[in-house]
Amino acid sequence: MPDHSPDPFGAFIPGPRAAVAGAPAGPLHGLAFAVKDLYDVAGYPTTYGNPDWARTHPPAAATAPIVTALLQAGANLRGKTRTVELAYGLTGENIWHGTPLNPKAPERFPGGSSCGSAAAVAGGLVDFALGSDTGGSVRIPASYCGIFGIRPSWGAISLAGACGLGPSFDTPGWFAARAEVLQRVGAVLLPEDVPAATGPLLKPGEPWMNAEPAAAAALAPAMAALEGLLGPTISLALVPETLGTLYEHFRCAQAEEAWATLGSWVAAANPEFGPGVKERFAAAREMDPAKAAAGRAFRRPFAARMRALLAGGAVLAYPTSPSPAPKLTASPAEQNGVRERTMGVTAIAGLAGLPEVSVPVGLADGAPVGLSLVAAPGRDRALLALAARLAGALGLAG
Amino acid sequence: MPDHSPDPFGAFIPGPRAAVAGAPAGPLHGLAFAVKDLYDVAGYPTTYGNPDWARTHPPAAATAPIVTALLQAGANLRGKTRTVELAYGLTGENIWHGTPLNPKAPERFPGGSSCGSAAAVAGGLVDFALGSDTGGSVRIPASYCGIFGIRPSWGAISLAGACGLGPSFDTPGWFAARAEVLQRVGAVLLPEDVPAATGPLLKPGEPWMNAEPAAAAALAPAMAALEGLLGPTISLALVPETLGTLYEHFRCAQAEEAWATLGSWVAAANPEFGPGVKERFAAAREMDPAKAAAGRAFRRPFAARMRALLAGGAVLAYPTSPSPAPKLTASPAEQNGVRERTMGVTAIAGLAGLPEVSVPVGLADGAPVGLSLVAAPGRDRALLALAARLAGALGLAG
Repeated sequence: MPDHSPDPFGAFIPGPRAAVAGAPAGPLHGLAFAVKDLYDVAGYPTTYGNPDWARTHPPAAATAPIVTALLQAGANLRGKTRTVELAYGLTGENIWHGTPLNPKAPERFPGGSSCGSAAAVAGGLVDFALGSDTGGSVRIPASYCGIFGIRPSWGAISLAGACGLGPSFDTPGWFAARAEVLQRVGAVLLPEDVPAATGPLLKPGEPWMNAEPAAAAALAPAMAALEGLLGPTISLALVPETLGTLYEHFRCAQAEEAWATLGSWVAAANPEFGPGVKERFAAAREMDPAKAAAGRAFRRPFAARMRALLAGGAVLAYPTSPSPAPKLTASPAEQNGVRERTMGVTAIAGLAGLPEVSVPVGLADGAPVGLSLVAAPGRDRALLALAARLAGALGLAG
Repeated sequence: MPDHSPDPFGAFIPGPRAAVAGAPAGPLHGLAFAVKDLYDVAGYPTTYGNPDWARTHPPAAATAPIVTALLQAGANLRGKTRTVELAYGLTGENIWHGTPLNPKAPERFPGGSSCGSAAAVAGGLVDFALGSDTGGSVRIPASYCGIFGIRPSWGAISLAGACGLGPSFDTPGWFAARAEVLQRVGAVLLPEDVPAATGPLLKPGEPWMNAEPAAAAALAPAMAALEGLLGPTISLALVPETLGTLYEHFRCAQAEEAWATLGSWVAAANPEFGPGVKERFAAAREMDPAKAAAGRAFRRPFAARMRALLAGGAVLAYPTSPSPAPKLTASPAEQNGVRERTMGVTAIAGLAGLPEVSVPVGLADGAPVGLSLVAAPGRDRALLALAARLAGALGLAG
């Protein structure tokens, strides 16, 4: 029976809702959730945010195992949420389905590409929602919408039955308004952690210097609370490279994968794309192979260095996004500037496959900004537990 | 210019060869290679072994980054090789393109699903060839065709631009007749190893008990040589479960992913499949969700146990396949029996994401059998180095 309950934030895709009841018992019993419309739910189309994609792909014959696992754990699926077309964008804009409202800052973008899932959670329509993250698509809308969000360790959870964008970067991810719910979902989906202590607390200079002063200031109380939990901060330079270099390598390696993954369809179907998405696919098509190779080559020692730094259980803390969400009136050039500054930060975990949890700890210019906790691959459960402790220390609804 | 050089073993897909010259210099300069026809090469169709797949998918607009990396390293692509339809089978049979000959045992199957790549290498047509491995599709043809083959750590190398079967199991992989070439390709494709010593040498009871006596006996000299390199063998029981239990959990979890990945296309295109493949997709469609959930649930503690066992640098050694390749005259029932006994062994690395190298060390009943070396995830380079040392100690052409 399709669900037609109100959608004041434009979080869900238009049309009948994919509603599936969960098992009658289980660790997520009674929780309501939504899934970004790049996860298959049997019997429903998967639009991937684009009408031509929906037109040229059959309805899903199977449900993605990650969604099945949530249903088997007792959660009830309320529907599929809007996404940036082919998940290739960070603002959350979608000219076909409409851009979801940011419930916490209605004059600003919700962030993307998992915009609808973030809006559904921030607006209180569901308890949690699945997104996906290639270059920040869970972390950024979590920061912009003032909710919790996790990009797990790359590879920790299967993406079978989900549309891909850059397979060696793609992860699932989820949002919740409460740390406890974020953690309970993790207990269902995540593998066992690798054993390691948590701490010390590392404060890398680059993403803090990169943040707008108001955003950095808004996170200061949370950093103090984190020091109360983990001991004094150790400040360090993360990499000899600049964040601009990280962004450039990320962009090139990811564009190569985006075109390898989706280019055959784009070339054959010649889909109509909205602004931004169109330009990004055109750039992916023209990507210089030497630049892509440089991006691939950069990843290996960078990932090895990050893993070595974090191997003992250290946790990095830095602003998830350098600023709150851009305003809906921002020009394309302004949006691109935000995108570049933002993706230099999100590239840290993206290039190295690290888990990252964004905690909604502050307001800058009256709009939400998140603090990210980042650990070594395989430390997802410890990171979720730390986020819950931080939320408790800050008195956030948990 | 299409390549029409002879193909005495039926390794390549019919029609013009995908031939692409590599860079004029690089660590693989002058080597010839082939790729299983589930990797995209720009301008060519990707058949995935099935005419209906080829008919319903556009030619590739992009080349898979793993193939680009090999070309950039100076290797020359000679063409695309036959695969079991949608990579869902272990014998190497393909009724549409023809089953490649096993150059080392022409009366037997070549093994699959990467049958053409194994035949091209074993027959001396190329220096190395890319395959892919979900449930044994590189390891088994390596064992059956008497060549080296590696299934790397899950997630170590991007599968962008490659068709998927079970994303949380799928890995690329490659074959070579010489250990030194296998290792050189790894030096181009693999990330840095996690640091750890190599050894001790562990001999797990289950896959040795599961092997035919002639196959186990054929591997004895190689085990003695391995002891010369790593010290005395430590015999142990790998798991409290039987290999049959491992196979069952693997089969169910993988079938769920296969249907989630390919079911929408199968349901919409209603493709014609050859024998075996057809039945496996029918079983995947009907997979009991409770069994799939049990398979998913089994993986986590199993993988954690394997990683703990191997964390210090230990290496497992056991027969890659419990027997040489089945004869071409084997009945479907006999083939299924071999498949079940074989996949109980291949499920060890498959369920836990472990790297596995098969070394062609012996003959049983006059046909090749391989010895597998298996390590913790991230130890791929160490494993390739060990395989090269073992090949040297055994006087194999290296």
